[in-house]
Amino acid sequence: MTAYSCMTRDQQETEYNRILRQYRAFEDQKMNLNIARGKPSREQLDLISDFFDLLHSDSDFSCDGVDCRNYGDLSGLPSAKRLWADILGCKPEETFIGGASSLTLMYDVISKAYTHGLLRSPRPWSKEEKIRFLCPSPGYDRHFRITESFGAELITIPMTESGPDMDLVEAYVQDPAVKGIWCVPKFSNPDGIVYSAQTVERFAHLNPAAPDFVIMWDNAYCVHEFTGEFLPFPDILSACREAGRPDMVFEFASTSKITFPGSGISVFACSEENLKYMTKLMSVQMISYNKVNQYAHVLFLKDREHTLEIMKRHATVMAPKFRVVEEALSSEIAPLGFARWNKPTGGYFVSLFTMPGTAKRALELCSQVGLTMTSAGASYPYGIDPDDSNIRIAPSYPPVEELQQAMNVFCTCLKLAALEKLLGK
Amino acid sequence: MTAYSCMTRDQQETEYNRILRQYRAFEDQKMNLNIARGKPSREQLDLISDFFDLLHSDSDFSCDGVDCRNYGDLSGLPSAKRLWADILGCKPEETFIGGASSLTLMYDVISKAYTHGLLRSPRPWSKEEKIRFLCPSPGYDRHFRITESFGAELITIPMTESGPDMDLVEAYVQDPAVKGIWCVPKFSNPDGIVYSAQTVERFAHLNPAAPDFVIMWDNAYCVHEFTGEFLPFPDILSACREAGRPDMVFEFASTSKITFPGSGISVFACSEENLKYMTKLMSVQMISYNKVNQYAHVLFLKDREHTLEIMKRHATVMAPKFRVVEEALSSEIAPLGFARWNKPTGGYFVSLFTMPGTAKRALELCSQVGLTMTSAGASYPYGIDPDDSNIRIAPSYPPVEELQQAMNVFCTCLKLAALEKLLGK
Repeated sequence: MTAYSCMTRDQQETEYNRILRQYRAFEDQKMNLNIARGKPSREQLDLISDFFDLLHSDSDFSCDGVDCRNYGDLSGLPSAKRLWADILGCKPEETFIGGASSLTLMYDVISKAYTHGLLRSPRPWSKEEKIRFLCPSPGYDRHFRITESFGAELITIPMTESGPDMDLVEAYVQDPAVKGIWCVPKFSNPDGIVYSAQTVERFAHLNPAAPDFVIMWDNAYCVHEFTGEFLPFPDILSACREAGRPDMVFEFASTSKITFPGSGISVFACSEENLKYMTKLMSVQMISYNKVNQYAHVLFLKDREHTLEIMKRHATVMAPKFRVVEEALSSEIAPLGFARWNKPTGGYFVSLFTMPGTAKRALELCSQVGLTMTSAGASYPYGIDPDDSNIRIAPSYPPVEELQQAMNVFCTCLKLAALEKLLGK
Repeated sequence: MTAYSCMTRDQQETEYNRILRQYRAFEDQKMNLNIARGKPSREQLDLISDFFDLLHSDSDFSCDGVDCRNYGDLSGLPSAKRLWADILGCKPEETFIGGASSLTLMYDVISKAYTHGLLRSPRPWSKEEKIRFLCPSPGYDRHFRITESFGAELITIPMTESGPDMDLVEAYVQDPAVKGIWCVPKFSNPDGIVYSAQTVERFAHLNPAAPDFVIMWDNAYCVHEFTGEFLPFPDILSACREAGRPDMVFEFASTSKITFPGSGISVFACSEENLKYMTKLMSVQMISYNKVNQYAHVLFLKDREHTLEIMKRHATVMAPKFRVVEEALSSEIAPLGFARWNKPTGGYFVSLFTMPGTAKRALELCSQVGLTMTSAGASYPYGIDPDDSNIRIAPSYPPVEELQQAMNVFCTCLKLAALEKLLGK
């Protein structure tokens, strides 16, 4: 195969007609394929449903002297706090155990910043003239949407191989209107990048003009290696404490992709002073999150070591799917020279950069033959990718056979969109 | 026994010394009793723990074609929506199924009113100069605290035998700064009053100046009769719809006192247009609430009829406790003529009005000998009872023997505080 850019125009035309015929063949197949969201597969859920055999009517529901079936313990069961502290590498007294969604905890922090202010806020953000928020991109669309929904101005920070462009971050935090940054530090969504130790240190040593600047550290994929061994990762709470700014960070995680999406438990971790402040605010909105579910998770996951064992069950299903993606892209797309992509060892996504100006069109072509993918631009603030190049591939949900079919369609659409562009069609 | 007001001063002195000796005897007993909160007892929780025998690893987790273990269905499992609609008497498409806490759903509605505005809001409440909120009192302290925490001015509305003083409510809603009212319409907290049909109709026909005035209808005790038969109650959503203001009300409920406190499921019900608006706002903060727990509740509760059967299990434990309270008060306090109280047939509380100016002192006396009760004034806005008279008794948690002991202490402290007042001590 020849790279498209090295072909003559005639060769490109021939190739275009060949790919168009392939595409036309899909049109008749009435496919219904979906690789849009990082949704675990049924097979993964079945592999961990022994979770439901742990609690019975005659179980001892008492844990650390607390009847987990009754009211109380706003910040979580002590045993659940110990579990999360073990997984994240922080202290139990730095954790607050939430409900099924860490996204809700993140929303809560931002919402309370607007209505009540954070611990170090001179006033609630709703009383500030302008709020700006840093968004390393490509990034997680749901993060960006939270701050967007409150009216913050979103600022794109480019991603590098070692994390967000820290020179730019350090420059932006000089602006007192810049109140925070969204981060997925390990196996970033969608790039699968693991922030380098130096990046983590530079985060901890940030010197923002806003006293209530907050690092929203979404450690969503903290134990989510699907290939190779567990990758230890620095504890951001200790790093910030040692750098003298213990209150600058909120870390988040959940069991959504460890046990069950939407019915697991979540956590935020922060300095003890932050925790005290947030717990006081949260005491107005609830008595406690679901402690029965916390208890079931403690029984099921036990500790970090055993959690990593559980994650190996997921890996047996996930690894072959990522291999399908990699094989399709390296055989079908790599030789054509118009796209690049990451090769993650954990997380839920492959992030692909196709020929600039063709991502939207490629996904439109996918959609027309029944393949749903995350919409182009979704990984950028306001849903706009200035290069119209990035595409997020989420291979976890469909069975391997369907995924192969989806990748076949996807590669064809990438090629067709690129050739259309080259030929000015 | 003679009513205190009919005693001579000498008789009062003699009685004072007698009661003081009784009280001194408690001091040596180092008791640790608690009738402060509406917390179900261990016995109740044990009676319904067959809940945990319903789901197993080999269960069919698919419900209405949805795998309840995976992401999706933001507004709830269809079967959970049908269950709540059946219990509340509204339509499934008017329900949004929440997490373990209806309080959190109420907080969310108020919080979003401040940050984004409600469906009919001209602007977010945070942009209004002043927000006022009506608080029928005695009422639920956690309701009042939500609006207080957002900076609303709380206005006390006296309670009558048939619900809040509606003449006053109708007058207050003429003020465009008055944005809503808190209600517990059936077995009100703490009075146990059931709003009359006429009160419900007057609510539905309110004509508020604020276009986004909201009735926060917390139907917390909708199926919580502990004696006698189920009391049917009008559906406020239909009433408001028929009166031409379908968007004026949000109804709330939960299974906190049906299955497990803090690990049940909750619901809000509202017009379909409200639901659409709220669902859009909530899509930013979560993917869905815990659908596994929703499914388990559907399997356990089935429908309203079966839910009422489950409630009879609770009643077997609750009824004897309310009898203990009633017997203690009617034998020890009634003849003395300085206090009155309600005799509810459902809910979780007995609301007592003691001699004005002595409630705080009575509870201080209780506390000094190891009996914890809801603090005096808690049922009023800002925690201030202008008469210092109301006391909330929550008999559900302790075993009957401890409750008898607690009521013994409580009656003694009521008398001592009253005699101190009469004698100017």
